[in-house]
Amino acid sequence: MSLKEISRNKAFGGQVIKYEHHSNELDCDIKFNVYLPKEADSAPVPAIYFLSGLTCNEDNFIQKSGALVEAAKHGIALIAPDTSPRGVSIQGDSDSWDFGTGAGFYVDATEPSWAKHYRMYSYVVHELPALINKSLPIDGSKVSIMGHSMGGHGALTIFLKNSANYQSVSAFSPIANPINCQWGQKAFTGYLGKNQETWKEYDTVELLKKFNGKVNALVDVGTSDNFLENQLNIDTLKDTVGSLGKSSEWTIRYQPGYDHSYFFISTFIADHIIHHAKALKQ
Amino acid sequence: MSLKEISRNKAFGGQVIKYEHHSNELDCDIKFNVYLPKEADSAPVPAIYFLSGLTCNEDNFIQKSGALVEAAKHGIALIAPDTSPRGVSIQGDSDSWDFGTGAGFYVDATEPSWAKHYRMYSYVVHELPALINKSLPIDGSKVSIMGHSMGGHGALTIFLKNSANYQSVSAFSPIANPINCQWGQKAFTGYLGKNQETWKEYDTVELLKKFNGKVNALVDVGTSDNFLENQLNIDTLKDTVGSLGKSSEWTIRYQPGYDHSYFFISTFIADHIIHHAKALKQ
Repeated sequence: MSLKEISRNKAFGGQVIKYEHHSNELDCDIKFNVYLPKEADSAPVPAIYFLSGLTCNEDNFIQKSGALVEAAKHGIALIAPDTSPRGVSIQGDSDSWDFGTGAGFYVDATEPSWAKHYRMYSYVVHELPALINKSLPIDGSKVSIMGHSMGGHGALTIFLKNSANYQSVSAFSPIANPINCQWGQKAFTGYLGKNQETWKEYDTVELLKKFNGKVNALVDVGTSDNFLENQLNIDTLKDTVGSLGKSSEWTIRYQPGYDHSYFFISTFIADHIIHHAKALKQ
Repeated sequence: MSLKEISRNKAFGGQVIKYEHHSNELDCDIKFNVYLPKEADSAPVPAIYFLSGLTCNEDNFIQKSGALVEAAKHGIALIAPDTSPRGVSIQGDSDSWDFGTGAGFYVDATEPSWAKHYRMYSYVVHELPALINKSLPIDGSKVSIMGHSMGGHGALTIFLKNSANYQSVSAFSPIANPINCQWGQKAFTGYLGKNQETWKEYDTVELLKKFNGKVNALVDVGTSDNFLENQLNIDTLKDTVGSLGKSSEWTIRYQPGYDHSYFFISTFIADHIIHHAKALKQ
């Protein structure tokens, strides 16, 4: 396991570096982008992982979110993984934009066709951080996680299942209750099979019901998001948080007139970086 | 001439709107993006045109520059045109990335094959502002212009030829002396023919020698820009400015370690917006 540097661009005093490496979990070569602020030249820095949404790869967040300026201010690294295995050929992996390539859903697949490669959960939780902490000037004890849409689902579920690993969590427009929406049902049927009990291990609302730790979460969603009504189930998340008496641990904001795009993300990304910076610098 | 709205996304309290319209100058349908800050809801606002570089279209700047946050702070609109006619079929227009489609070079072509459609100079200087000032809440008396690479060349030459129309100018990595670099020589030979006297009308260094007005220009270029040595001729621009005794009117900055990419632009875009905001609000 070693990192091959694909490109490097100076930005805000630091460096955006694209790496490629062989992933054992995904059984393929895969890329990610990292933004290292200038502080990383002299000492390991805290980091925030950003998990992207359907159809995205490692580039969208780094190029379009406007996050770098705020990360540079706080001396925090950003890590943007890809969203699925690449270059593997599995029947059906390119038939639709919401399943297969670009749509790994941050689960470890158990269905036979997908189980060999589609292990984005273990890749993001274990393999990639181990590689990064060994190879780059990142302080592995000061790490947070966030994401958008499918990646918001990824960030929230990964946090709830591994809260000791992350100082804070946030999400833009997360698929908050995938077992009860079409995107999630399609993905989980394909990757995990028909036993819906196994799906609950990757559902924010279900995980929250049995979570005992403390959460410090920020969630933003636009009221003009085309997917708000049928896919995201933010109301269900908010109701669950409320009924569990956990409202003080969750800031869930409905942003009037904003949609599902990176224009929405870029408008509120500074708030999210600041949210994580507070937790990472405690 | 009317505007067809293609998409609209809320961002930083304002709106990014993509329009399509028929251009008489270009004799084709063409798109542009505009960012209208929330102040445009109640009164016309100042605007900055951004001219993009080779291979770009109306999206790159709006999606990748990070300019919107700073434009929103100052209540300034951003206008991002395309870089060439689209959907026209001219022999040779797709043979190379630095000529033809995506590479209009902000000239009015005179060579017979190109003269009908490749009139990006008149489109950007006359047709598009007339359409925008008539149709959108833009104060046409408070307009500035900037650009990147080929678009930096466009911004500087258009400013020098029409300085009464613009309050200020700036450029990232401009092709500052195109008659003396391969990109410019290829484009000008193709669009303007072999008489090099006609080329000088689209060359910043040459225009500067006969310019009598006052300039307030900001130019940034990265010292690790792959095109700095052979294509941009920033040293020639700087020397010309100096020999004309105009150094006080030009801020030309060599940014150590930065390259030609949008990561470079995003790092310094706030400085450019502030440069224009000062001029636009006088």
